[in-house]
Amino acid sequence: MKNVLAERYASTAMSHLWSGEGKVLLERQYWVAVLKAQADLGLSVPAGVIQAYENVIHQIDLTSIMNRERITRHDVKARIEEFCDLAGHEHIHKGMTSRDLTENVEQLQVFRALLLLRDRSVAALSRFAKIAARFRDLPLTARTHNVAAQVTTFGKRMAMFGEEMLHAHHALESLLRTYPARGLKGAVGTRLDQITLFNGDTSQARALETRVLHHLGLPTSFDAVGQVYPRSLDFRVVSALVDLASGASSFAKTLRLMAGHELASEGFAKGQVGSSAMPHKMNSRSCERINGLHVILKGHLAMAAGLAGDQWNEGDVSCSVVRRVMLPDAFLAMDGLLETLITVLDQMEVFEAVVHSELKRYLPFLLTTTVLMAAVKAGAGREAAHEAIKEHAVATIKDLRTGTITGNDLMDRLAADTRLGLDRKALQDILTVGKGNTGDAPEQVDHFCQTVAELAAQHPAAAAYTPGTIL
Amino acid sequence: MKNVLAERYASTAMSHLWSGEGKVLLERQYWVAVLKAQADLGLSVPAGVIQAYENVIHQIDLTSIMNRERITRHDVKARIEEFCDLAGHEHIHKGMTSRDLTENVEQLQVFRALLLLRDRSVAALSRFAKIAARFRDLPLTARTHNVAAQVTTFGKRMAMFGEEMLHAHHALESLLRTYPARGLKGAVGTRLDQITLFNGDTSQARALETRVLHHLGLPTSFDAVGQVYPRSLDFRVVSALVDLASGASSFAKTLRLMAGHELASEGFAKGQVGSSAMPHKMNSRSCERINGLHVILKGHLAMAAGLAGDQWNEGDVSCSVVRRVMLPDAFLAMDGLLETLITVLDQMEVFEAVVHSELKRYLPFLLTTTVLMAAVKAGAGREAAHEAIKEHAVATIKDLRTGTITGNDLMDRLAADTRLGLDRKALQDILTVGKGNTGDAPEQVDHFCQTVAELAAQHPAAAAYTPGTIL
Amino acid sequence: MKNVLAERYASTAMSHLWSGEGKVLLERQYWVAVLKAQADLGLSVPAGVIQAYENVIHQIDLTSIMNRERITRHDVKARIEEFCDLAGHEHIHKGMTSRDLTENVEQLQVFRALLLLRDRSVAALSRFAKIAARFRDLPLTARTHNVAAQVTTFGKRMAMFGEEMLHAHHALESLLRTYPARGLKGAVGTRLDQITLFNGDTSQARALETRVLHHLGLPTSFDAVGQVYPRSLDFRVVSALVDLASGASSFAKTLRLMAGHELASEGFAKGQVGSSAMPHKMNSRSCERINGLHVILKGHLAMAAGLAGDQWNEGDVSCSVVRRVMLPDAFLAMDGLLETLITVLDQMEVFEAVVHSELKRYLPFLLTTTVLMAAVKAGAGREAAHEAIKEHAVATIKDLRTGTITGNDLMDRLAADTRLGLDRKALQDILTVGKGNTGDAPEQVDHFCQTVAELAAQHPAAAAYTPGTIL
Amino acid sequence: MKNVLAERYASTAMSHLWSGEGKVLLERQYWVAVLKAQADLGLSVPAGVIQAYENVIHQIDLTSIMNRERITRHDVKARIEEFCDLAGHEHIHKGMTSRDLTENVEQLQVFRALLLLRDRSVAALSRFAKIAARFRDLPLTARTHNVAAQVTTFGKRMAMFGEEMLHAHHALESLLRTYPARGLKGAVGTRLDQITLFNGDTSQARALETRVLHHLGLPTSFDAVGQVYPRSLDFRVVSALVDLASGASSFAKTLRLMAGHELASEGFAKGQVGSSAMPHKMNSRSCERINGLHVILKGHLAMAAGLAGDQWNEGDVSCSVVRRVMLPDAFLAMDGLLETLITVLDQMEVFEAVVHSELKRYLPFLLTTTVLMAAVKAGAGREAAHEAIKEHAVATIKDLRTGTITGNDLMDRLAADTRLGLDRKALQDILTVGKGNTGDAPEQVDHFCQTVAELAAQHPAAAAYTPGTIL
Repeated sequence: MKNVLAERYASTAMSHLWSGEGKVLLERQYWVAVLKAQADLGLSVPAGVIQAYENVIHQIDLTSIMNRERITRHDVKARIEEFCDLAGHEHIHKGMTSRDLTENVEQLQVFRALLLLRDRSVAALSRFAKIAARFRDLPLTARTHNVAAQVTTFGKRMAMFGEEMLHAHHALESLLRTYPARGLKGAVGTRLDQITLFNGDTSQARALETRVLHHLGLPTSFDAVGQVYPRSLDFRVVSALVDLASGASSFAKTLRLMAGHELASEGFAKGQVGSSAMPHKMNSRSCERINGLHVILKGHLAMAAGLAGDQWNEGDVSCSVVRRVMLPDAFLAMDGLLETLITVLDQMEVFEAVVHSELKRYLPFLLTTTVLMAAVKAGAGREAAHEAIKEHAVATIKDLRTGTITGNDLMDRLAADTRLGLDRKALQDILTVGKGNTGDAPEQVDHFCQTVAELAAQHPAAAAYTPGTIL
Repeated sequence: MKNVLAERYASTAMSHLWSGEGKVLLERQYWVAVLKAQADLGLSVPAGVIQAYENVIHQIDLTSIMNRERITRHDVKARIEEFCDLAGHEHIHKGMTSRDLTENVEQLQVFRALLLLRDRSVAALSRFAKIAARFRDLPLTARTHNVAAQVTTFGKRMAMFGEEMLHAHHALESLLRTYPARGLKGAVGTRLDQITLFNGDTSQARALETRVLHHLGLPTSFDAVGQVYPRSLDFRVVSALVDLASGASSFAKTLRLMAGHELASEGFAKGQVGSSAMPHKMNSRSCERINGLHVILKGHLAMAAGLAGDQWNEGDVSCSVVRRVMLPDAFLAMDGLLETLITVLDQMEVFEAVVHSELKRYLPFLLTTTVLMAAVKAGAGREAAHEAIKEHAVATIKDLRTGTITGNDLMDRLAADTRLGLDRKALQDILTVGKGNTGDAPEQVDHFCQTVAELAAQHPAAAAYTPGTIL
Repeated sequence: MKNVLAERYASTAMSHLWSGEGKVLLERQYWVAVLKAQADLGLSVPAGVIQAYENVIHQIDLTSIMNRERITRHDVKARIEEFCDLAGHEHIHKGMTSRDLTENVEQLQVFRALLLLRDRSVAALSRFAKIAARFRDLPLTARTHNVAAQVTTFGKRMAMFGEEMLHAHHALESLLRTYPARGLKGAVGTRLDQITLFNGDTSQARALETRVLHHLGLPTSFDAVGQVYPRSLDFRVVSALVDLASGASSFAKTLRLMAGHELASEGFAKGQVGSSAMPHKMNSRSCERINGLHVILKGHLAMAAGLAGDQWNEGDVSCSVVRRVMLPDAFLAMDGLLETLITVLDQMEVFEAVVHSELKRYLPFLLTTTVLMAAVKAGAGREAAHEAIKEHAVATIKDLRTGTITGNDLMDRLAADTRLGLDRKALQDILTVGKGNTGDAPEQVDHFCQTVAELAAQHPAAAAYTPGTIL
Repeated sequence: MKNVLAERYASTAMSHLWSGEGKVLLERQYWVAVLKAQADLGLSVPAGVIQAYENVIHQIDLTSIMNRERITRHDVKARIEEFCDLAGHEHIHKGMTSRDLTENVEQLQVFRALLLLRDRSVAALSRFAKIAARFRDLPLTARTHNVAAQVTTFGKRMAMFGEEMLHAHHALESLLRTYPARGLKGAVGTRLDQITLFNGDTSQARALETRVLHHLGLPTSFDAVGQVYPRSLDFRVVSALVDLASGASSFAKTLRLMAGHELASEGFAKGQVGSSAMPHKMNSRSCERINGLHVILKGHLAMAAGLAGDQWNEGDVSCSVVRRVMLPDAFLAMDGLLETLITVLDQMEVFEAVVHSELKRYLPFLLTTTVLMAAVKAGAGREAAHEAIKEHAVATIKDLRTGTITGNDLMDRLAADTRLGLDRKALQDILTVGKGNTGDAPEQVDHFCQTVAELAAQHPAAAAYTPGTIL
């Protein structure tokens, strides 16, 4: 039975990183790195041994390993035996406990997966910037409480979701800069076995760990750690993914809303068609998927939170099965989410005519404050003017809702009301100007695009990434 | 990349139910059942067509189906085409929308998976009863706040966790009795397409649904449902799993605690040995797994809760990816949990000598109230006696903790204190009796065992189930 | 600092049940019930003692109790002392441990709170039925994926959400029928202290518990329980609340969507006005609140799940602070949700003209399948007809989105296409009939209303409940 | 009805920050700051107006405000009216929408609450360091899977939990450095109303915001934001709290385990006594509370996650009720957790004699690898020696568990076995040395203490903080 997230949603790169084969390879490279470091530091390793291991490093047979595990009921032992039998030697894993291997290798997977997501995030941000720039000045009815509120621009709406993502992106980068490895510290974290291996020479054991950390490439390490690294670190990682997914999810939800109003759609892939029964019907299935993957990530967050703060003594592995499921799946889900997001941003369509007609319907309502100020300036009493505007606004919306009228004629009604002292032309001018009352929106778009451009300049290949065809 | 829960933890029966092949088969059986019912109700179906579909029903090629989906980007369409091409006809799925198929078939998977878990739960309860009966009268230091509190029996402790599970078991059975199918109701739940198919004859459309529900075997159905059944039903299901896992999880946690005190262990499988470095070390890895799988289930619960109450209009499928992951995985996790639980209950060891010596250490403390009553009865003043007992109890625990003494000599101290008026023999009698102060515990065990026996009598095959070797 | 859920959202009845005063009163009534039962069963209780306690039962001073707790650091002890000092006796709590009091009294709060919610749920269901009946036949554009899909009726949409709630309501009733009390079983559940009090007579201790359970009024009880009842029971309760909230939440979300299309609104309270700046703006603030309270409940669910399956030995109270927060707050939130829901259902407005015009816009698209069948019947080739329809449908939607046309003229285009062989009148007939293609929707409404009517007949006062003004 | 977290667990400082009065004060200060900035930038504000507001700023009457809200059903309007009526002017809130006020003030509460927790965290870390230093060299049986594994030191175990907290502390500081204010940007984020107020001068509107942000003291701000700041920011905050609580929670859980073995206890407050029924019994009630508060925080995390990524358009307030509950309660819970943690760290007792006797019991098992190496060095065959050791180890643990022996005599057995060639003295030497096999543990303690000392030096007052008496 296949992992559905890997099979249907995640990219090949991410799936490979978490595959059984991928992990076995990382482990073997790690064992060889430890062995080399031990030899460098003076432990006796016979000639040819390291080469023998390296020769078979890519001969990975998961079935054979699983058969061994069914006998030993110990997964690491099974993998040691397999590698040693292939190499014809028994030199790896010296002075190591299982967790000296698995903690560090799993952290390496996490770290590399975070780097991959960092790159995908840069790609997604670049797309947000591109669309924001394209629709920088397109006036759009902004909605609060899902009801028309003021004018904004389509570009600013895109920049808004992009900016949400950008903040999470920075948090992710901060995590990458501070992610600590558990290191090679033995069964309970005292480095006892490596110290013993080096005849009590603590400095050699520390030197060994330094070399191993260098091999891993992680930025820092724990010091007074136990058998396992604190599981709050996994929690911090999964939190960062949920955080990074949030801007995308808000965007997807809003695009689903906009599709319901036909203001925009997520578009079709080349060759894709609507349902044969209803050719006009374009479902926001990719956006729904983004929202669904966000829900999945929040489930993984609950799993991660269930482990954090539950360490007994120097550690236990009640977390083992959880991490086997949660870590790969959270990254596969997030990767699938970003693949989908970039695809949607590349394909989405904006129906400008509908955007205009929506604004036309609501604009008079959105400008009542402006009319009030104009009326007062023209000599009307403030209270009387306010009362008049309120009467007409409420009547107009009522008539629209009862079907008495089909277009918004509020300005006509106001023009006809002497309490305001504003003629049709004055009101028409307000309408004309009002359409462009987008305030600072275009400048905000520029600012967002500038920030993203700088980020993309640091990661040009990442920014240019285009996903393959999604399902 | 494989599904780790299916590969490592769940039983074959449960994995098969959720496998790609398993689902395709259920779908095809469902399509054929609909087609037969349509024919019975008078729709024209050419001779040989049903037989042609039935002939190829087991020819399941997931790769071929996935290749079709990559073109159509529509999973149901891909499966229709595959089945029709194999059969050489295009008669299935008539008057149906995708959800008429997938909702009902997924519900069938859920229902059958619930039945499977119901049976496994009976097996686990039988094991709880067996051990409770075996240790019905073994006095055990009961702990509250993880500190010695009073005497109970080992059997009662087992019955306690069993009873927790039993209540959840009843809740599961209640869910099974009321689980409603979405039914064959068309794109938005009005049965329009089937009514149209039967030329506007609503009663025929209803008759069709009745036959289809009969095929499914579900106890009841929704009526005014939309495109999809309400996702709160999935939530109710996953909640029932978390509930059912809780007694097992409390038991596993307590067995981990008891193993730390060497009162009991989860045992070794035949042929299994401790770590070669530390042959004495028996880790509670299966109990940790039970706790870990419970954490995973709570993650799935968060996913299910994330969908409940989030229906837009007649339905949407922002839930699609979530349910693809959550439903199989929750059942696989719960199945693995029960396989592990039954195995632990079958293998666990109780170290009676350690149980006795623990009780010996704490018993004098646990009997201070009894001593007080005896002293008062013997003529001592209540306040003076209380003060004396308190002084000695606090001094004794302090001396034990500072290593001044190695055994609990509280009774000796009390015998030497004239304020109490109790001699060594009187106090020794209190100790002897006190060891058996297990109150109602044995009767509670009997009551639990009786209830489970009745349940097992209803499901004898289920009660007798023994899992294969777990990893 | 006040509890915001009690202060702003919950009803007085629910707040009172969970108030400090309310709990102290329940505890005192419980103590007196135990004392009476002990006296009945032969324990010596001096004349006048019970009366003395009863005389002061309503003299509740939380500040005085809290001052005592700050000294003893033991909440139950503080409340015992307060009650005894008031009564001038020390006879309550005999043979009891703290948990003999608190577990049962908290369960009584839970049980009564569940009963209250059951009643509110009946009220809400009655309102769903009322509106469903009122709009039983109003054709409405059903949406899936938030896009127009087929015709339904407004009443059926309401019945759909009502039916979701109805299933959860039945689950709640099942919980009420099976909710087990922890009972009066002493420090570790063996009834030792009561047995001792009755000089070793186990049957007297059981008889005492039976009387106490009768006082509580709970339907059943645990038997082999420890210091505390299993926390999976609290989980089952909070799950039932989340479940019950789901139909309401789906409804609220959909009403927010409908408000965005001006199809309906949650209405204004008498005297309420829109914002003074935008008099036309009616925000769905109550519906948003329903959705928000649902989110809060899911947080309480995570708390409850965090306790379930985490019992150590005979019990511990790492759950203590959690239950102090979670239990009252979950019930207060759910109560506030139902108060809000009933208010919205009582006030909501449906804008039929807008409902009609939406349907007019989409109906031609929704009827393409019908047109296809008619064309084939009229002699057109199936493939040619399908192709023609698809061409025109896609062109029409495109023209609508580009503003080339403002109304849906698909039927005109089809009439002009000779490939179909259908004239304007034939197509107009399809439109006219199609508007009423609501299939089984009205019958489903009837069925829902009938079920609710039966429920309301069982609880007439509950069904008639009207909330006070919400904030 | 009171907020139980504020009443029972949180400090006065934190409760005040989130109290109704506290918030009203912050709002009024904010309004006055905006008004001053508007005046500075040239808006006409009559003389004496600002002073009039400042004069009444501390006259806070929550009941009066609530009465206003019950009429207007608008909380901000109620607070505006109250402040204006008190001051006798209507000049505040000019060009502002509700969210211009509430978003920023709530962020100010969050920011200040984070600062407070940062300080408490420094205090807790200092205590961890203090205890770690004190027990830097005390050998302790390290446990993995809750079973004896190797020797560590008590100090290192403390440093381990401290280090977990330290990493979360750094993450919290990173959040403080990057926490962005929503700013004064009007109804949909375009700054339209302020721009209008300044007659279209965008730069004046930006200048106004800069001054307001300066008043708030937040390090940065959003730019292209909507009506509300993205709720993923709240999620980031609550995540940081859960993260910070994790080290404390792991420590508390382990102290509860150690108390069960009588290795340590959380201590008693001055004047506190055990239960009168069982004077020896010291429950880990404060540690349980820490674990409980962590569970509560994870519930708040679920609430925060339920809002993140759920923004519709420019924003909506389905989050309103959630944030009213979640934000104060999460901070109150975390504050209570830290108050409790510091108290436990200040009061905890270590029972060194029990620590020693535990080690004595397990040490021979923990040294089997060392014995093996010595035997091989002394001339024994590796396999034969391994077999001999395994036989004796398994037999010894079995005899201990069956009560055949009461002390661990493994070394005697090994001395008597000729296969090993090690005499009693050689084995005794291994035992003597082995007790000190704490590897790097003391150095790790030093390293942790050094890091904390540097941190404390930056925040000396914070490090010195001592909580009041906890409940």
